[in-house]
Amino acid sequence: MKKPLVGIIMGSQSDLRIMKEAAQFLEDIGVPFELTIVSAHRTPERLFEYGKSAASRGLKVIIAGAGGAAHLPGMVASLTTLPVIGVPVKSSNSIDGWDSVLSILQMPSGVPVATVALDGARNAGILAAQIVGAFDESIGQKLASFKEELKEKVLESAREVETKGFK
Amino acid sequence: MKKPLVGIIMGSQSDLRIMKEAAQFLEDIGVPFELTIVSAHRTPERLFEYGKSAASRGLKVIIAGAGGAAHLPGMVASLTTLPVIGVPVKSSNSIDGWDSVLSILQMPSGVPVATVALDGARNAGILAAQIVGAFDESIGQKLASFKEELKEKVLESAREVETKGFK
Amino acid sequence: MKKPLVGIIMGSQSDLRIMKEAAQFLEDIGVPFELTIVSAHRTPERLFEYGKSAASRGLKVIIAGAGGAAHLPGMVASLTTLPVIGVPVKSSNSIDGWDSVLSILQMPSGVPVATVALDGARNAGILAAQIVGAFDESIGQKLASFKEELKEKVLESAREVETKGFK
Amino acid sequence: MKKPLVGIIMGSQSDLRIMKEAAQFLEDIGVPFELTIVSAHRTPERLFEYGKSAASRGLKVIIAGAGGAAHLPGMVASLTTLPVIGVPVKSSNSIDGWDSVLSILQMPSGVPVATVALDGARNAGILAAQIVGAFDESIGQKLASFKEELKEKVLESAREVETKGFK
Amino acid sequence: MKKPLVGIIMGSQSDLRIMKEAAQFLEDIGVPFELTIVSAHRTPERLFEYGKSAASRGLKVIIAGAGGAAHLPGMVASLTTLPVIGVPVKSSNSIDGWDSVLSILQMPSGVPVATVALDGARNAGILAAQIVGAFDESIGQKLASFKEELKEKVLESAREVETKGFK
Amino acid sequence: MKKPLVGIIMGSQSDLRIMKEAAQFLEDIGVPFELTIVSAHRTPERLFEYGKSAASRGLKVIIAGAGGAAHLPGMVASLTTLPVIGVPVKSSNSIDGWDSVLSILQMPSGVPVATVALDGARNAGILAAQIVGAFDESIGQKLASFKEELKEKVLESAREVETKGFK
Amino acid sequence: MKKPLVGIIMGSQSDLRIMKEAAQFLEDIGVPFELTIVSAHRTPERLFEYGKSAASRGLKVIIAGAGGAAHLPGMVASLTTLPVIGVPVKSSNSIDGWDSVLSILQMPSGVPVATVALDGARNAGILAAQIVGAFDESIGQKLASFKEELKEKVLESAREVETKGFK
Amino acid sequence: MKKPLVGIIMGSQSDLRIMKEAAQFLEDIGVPFELTIVSAHRTPERLFEYGKSAASRGLKVIIAGAGGAAHLPGMVASLTTLPVIGVPVKSSNSIDGWDSVLSILQMPSGVPVATVALDGARNAGILAAQIVGAFDESIGQKLASFKEELKEKVLESAREVETKGFK
Repeated sequence: MKKPLVGIIMGSQSDLRIMKEAAQFLEDIGVPFELTIVSAHRTPERLFEYGKSAASRGLKVIIAGAGGAAHLPGMVASLTTLPVIGVPVKSSNSIDGWDSVLSILQMPSGVPVATVALDGARNAGILAAQIVGAFDESIGQKLASFKEELKEKVLESAREVETKGFK
Repeated sequence: MKKPLVGIIMGSQSDLRIMKEAAQFLEDIGVPFELTIVSAHRTPERLFEYGKSAASRGLKVIIAGAGGAAHLPGMVASLTTLPVIGVPVKSSNSIDGWDSVLSILQMPSGVPVATVALDGARNAGILAAQIVGAFDESIGQKLASFKEELKEKVLESAREVETKGFK
Repeated sequence: MKKPLVGIIMGSQSDLRIMKEAAQFLEDIGVPFELTIVSAHRTPERLFEYGKSAASRGLKVIIAGAGGAAHLPGMVASLTTLPVIGVPVKSSNSIDGWDSVLSILQMPSGVPVATVALDGARNAGILAAQIVGAFDESIGQKLASFKEELKEKVLESAREVETKGFK
Repeated sequence: MKKPLVGIIMGSQSDLRIMKEAAQFLEDIGVPFELTIVSAHRTPERLFEYGKSAASRGLKVIIAGAGGAAHLPGMVASLTTLPVIGVPVKSSNSIDGWDSVLSILQMPSGVPVATVALDGARNAGILAAQIVGAFDESIGQKLASFKEELKEKVLESAREVETKGFK
Repeated sequence: MKKPLVGIIMGSQSDLRIMKEAAQFLEDIGVPFELTIVSAHRTPERLFEYGKSAASRGLKVIIAGAGGAAHLPGMVASLTTLPVIGVPVKSSNSIDGWDSVLSILQMPSGVPVATVALDGARNAGILAAQIVGAFDESIGQKLASFKEELKEKVLESAREVETKGFK
Repeated sequence: MKKPLVGIIMGSQSDLRIMKEAAQFLEDIGVPFELTIVSAHRTPERLFEYGKSAASRGLKVIIAGAGGAAHLPGMVASLTTLPVIGVPVKSSNSIDGWDSVLSILQMPSGVPVATVALDGARNAGILAAQIVGAFDESIGQKLASFKEELKEKVLESAREVETKGFK
Repeated sequence: MKKPLVGIIMGSQSDLRIMKEAAQFLEDIGVPFELTIVSAHRTPERLFEYGKSAASRGLKVIIAGAGGAAHLPGMVASLTTLPVIGVPVKSSNSIDGWDSVLSILQMPSGVPVATVALDGARNAGILAAQIVGAFDESIGQKLASFKEELKEKVLESAREVETKGFK
Repeated sequence: MKKPLVGIIMGSQSDLRIMKEAAQFLEDIGVPFELTIVSAHRTPERLFEYGKSAASRGLKVIIAGAGGAAHLPGMVASLTTLPVIGVPVKSSNSIDGWDSVLSILQMPSGVPVATVALDGARNAGILAAQIVGAFDESIGQKLASFKEELKEKVLESAREVETKGFK
């Protein structure tokens, strides 16, 4: 397998249910990635090692998902100069997801996190691929095809609705 | 000066405007404290050292204030077994304080932060004193006197309003 | 049984479903506690007696859980100089938990409540143990071991995910 | 002066700025009232005495205003069978008033508080007068006249706008 | 049956599920009431007749429940000098109840609505009885007994929890 | 079939579940319409063609429904001078509908969208018919009858509740 | 002056500050309108007369603005079959405008209000003109020119920024 | 000047006040950029041309800022495979920024926008530089130096606070 360009991390195994969609998209489009669990609050040393070594290990982008008071994306961003994509996860103990969204989005000046929609792990995978694709023509092409497929599916469903009506 | 029992930290010098109220209360009631700046996002190594050494340096409680996606209280809590009091600060880039509140309050199971009201640094100082006072009778006594004073002030203002009327 | 150091109270028997997690943690870590029901709104006299006598009965910390317009934590805090930990409970008549959170968190200056996450009773138990542990080395040690276990579980799940992949 | 029928209380002298509007309306319409300061959190004993004695002292309605985690209206309602009107005050430490509103409105089953709009002290005075007026014809009549005046003022401003245009 | 003192109205038959709790309480405590459906938006004429005739028909209090953009309580309040209690109903098309709560609570100066908690119809019934009871000693007595029962139930559950423990 | 006066579009086939209620009302009341799928984000060219050609194809009103960051109503409004009715759809990835509501409602000056309630597609159909009916007497008449029916249903349910009681 | 096609009403003279922008746009584009004050809560009879007579007086659209628990747009919609545009006004007693928005937007099925952005009176005027313009070619043309002007202003500012740079 | 790698666009000249911070950072760190105004709602054709041509013109990242119902970032993302960074701007007509945040963040699956904090234009510039820097070692080095400077400033302010105390 090729050296991973994207690192996918999450705060807890229970986030895998959401975060695997990022992995699936990257696998489908052919961007090599690694995936593991790093908890900002329960394994702070591991967080440090992961963040500090990410760039030198060849990663180009990090995707970090977490729920509640989600500190993982912001903390890993504090430890690397790589772009970090944050996925707010609507975990069971979340207040309708607002805590996850705001804990990831509202980073202070100097340390950005590229936040995607609540539970938007698939979009995190796409965004990571777009970052890679901006500098790698073959991935860029695949993304253009992917966009074309999205369009085709809409056109197909439009034809279906126009033919069958609304009932 | 006596060895500090309470450590007051904040994410940025601009938080001092709020956080000094915690220091003032502790000074007034006679609980020794230390005060400095530790940024979770800009000085993660300093955060680690601070959190890891807090208990062995003799601290009993940590008060941490931060705004926006406030990770300082939660991250220092991940690095110590001491009780950590979090003060959500309504910083200039905050969305009405909701981000600070939720980033501090909604910690995952295993790593609590004792959250006080938005900009509630004075209450953080009082809470720290209460924790110390639960095990130190002389501080406990001073807190009882403080409570008495609070009451006296209300009674005085009640007398004033009752005498002067509402106009 | 040893004299309780922590008092756990809740506004209604229906809160026991959540609040028992605080008790369970304290039992597991060996901090003696008592547990009962005190309703601020339906048994105000009982609230008074509980709050007024707490310190003299030897308690060091009070954990109070309530839902909706949750007044129990704040009112008991008004009656004692002990630290009070408030647990906002997402009761059936709550507006997504916001009422419980804000009624407990936003205490006025002078009377803090150490608020934990919505339904965060387990964290309330941990926080109470941390307060006790700051002054009792054997509890402090057990908390360090507990933190180690949290870490081990994350590392184990990390190994599992790294081995088995995301599917 | 006649025996007060309405008791107006507030948590702090700083609430008088808002709460005096309730007093002004009652004075204008001729419903005798008393006004003082009672803090649920700083003078809990005073709160108890006030609530317990209200009905026997001849009060028919209590108006209670407070800000932040506003416990005064709900706690006084727990101590009396009189109707209690709650005024959420947008105090300086409030999160845009949401804390005051939810702490007063979301009372548990058994102990209602008649909540009015944020900073709606004048409406609290009107509501108290309506309660008295439902059983006292002369106050009822005055309320009908008051309603008539409200209408006249709107009609007057309508005539003004229709005549002068929008510029 | 005695002449009704309380009128209970709601915007739609689907609100009966919630609003019947107000009726049940009034029946239990012996305050005569009437109950029907009046839609502000679908039967505005009926709303007018109801509001305009309420006082002359002998009603002392009106309880009005509605969901979504709930205009019924406020509109009936505009048509009578009687106290109007508003019950925000969390209907199926509501945004988590916020629309109902704010549409009822935030009435302009001059036209108050006594708002109770979301889906708090039982508390609306209790509040109506408290208003009647402030001027009718026998109802006042029954309310005192009701409060006593609430207390007894809490004490009983406290004994149960203290005996059986938390498991 | 007559030339459509109303165009109903939606961002995804999954919105049909909600949006078909607009179609049903228009069919019932006899306003000719067309219905299809146009995705602002996945078929931007199709969006352009639809918006640009709408007026010249004889449409008088466009109804556009979408969820999440709902850009379809606002974007089609940017491309036509026809009135555009926006239906915020509470899609599965929405934060309780707030994103859909605000993305459609808060259009900048110059480009209005007539927003209806969350999932309020039926009301969008009624509003479209009202716009047509303001200039077409026969539709205006049918709307008056529709309003009469709404009223009759309420009166019927009122009679039922008055007869059968609340139990 | 020509017979008004659009009726602009508002709940209070203080809303004129916002609502005059609707009038200004209609004047500029040449759609005749009338403007007055109608308070749902203080002049309910006037509301009835206005709503009931609107269509027969020749109006085609009604624009209604109000703040707080804004009932005017929805109530006038209940009294007419004309399309009603609602403008949520952020009045001084509003909770950041949320009450106005939700009270107008979340109308029940059967009685739509075409809601525009908070304080969006100018957009309400544009929307009214679009409704008229869909059936009146000359207004439709003017709206196309207006859209062209909007575009020109953006292009001009784009040229300015591109030339002068960002400093 | 070198060929721009980053395109900065905004919906209105009034956004320049915020958005210039992105430009300033890119200028400081030496990433070539272009900056102009593109309005999704007022210049949809320009939006199309901009989005469609961005990749072929050599851009690697687009930064788009907008307020209210902010459609610019999402719409440009629908027209390119480049990564798009969205800056929610708290414009004068915004509801406390919530509309801008949710309109940009909550993009549907398939079309991500990398959202930064409210008014977080500087962080958008940093994120764009991080994306470029992941593939361009010299920029990566400059970002590491920038991070070092952030740290130094905190350490300096820490020394100042520790020396001068909190008063």
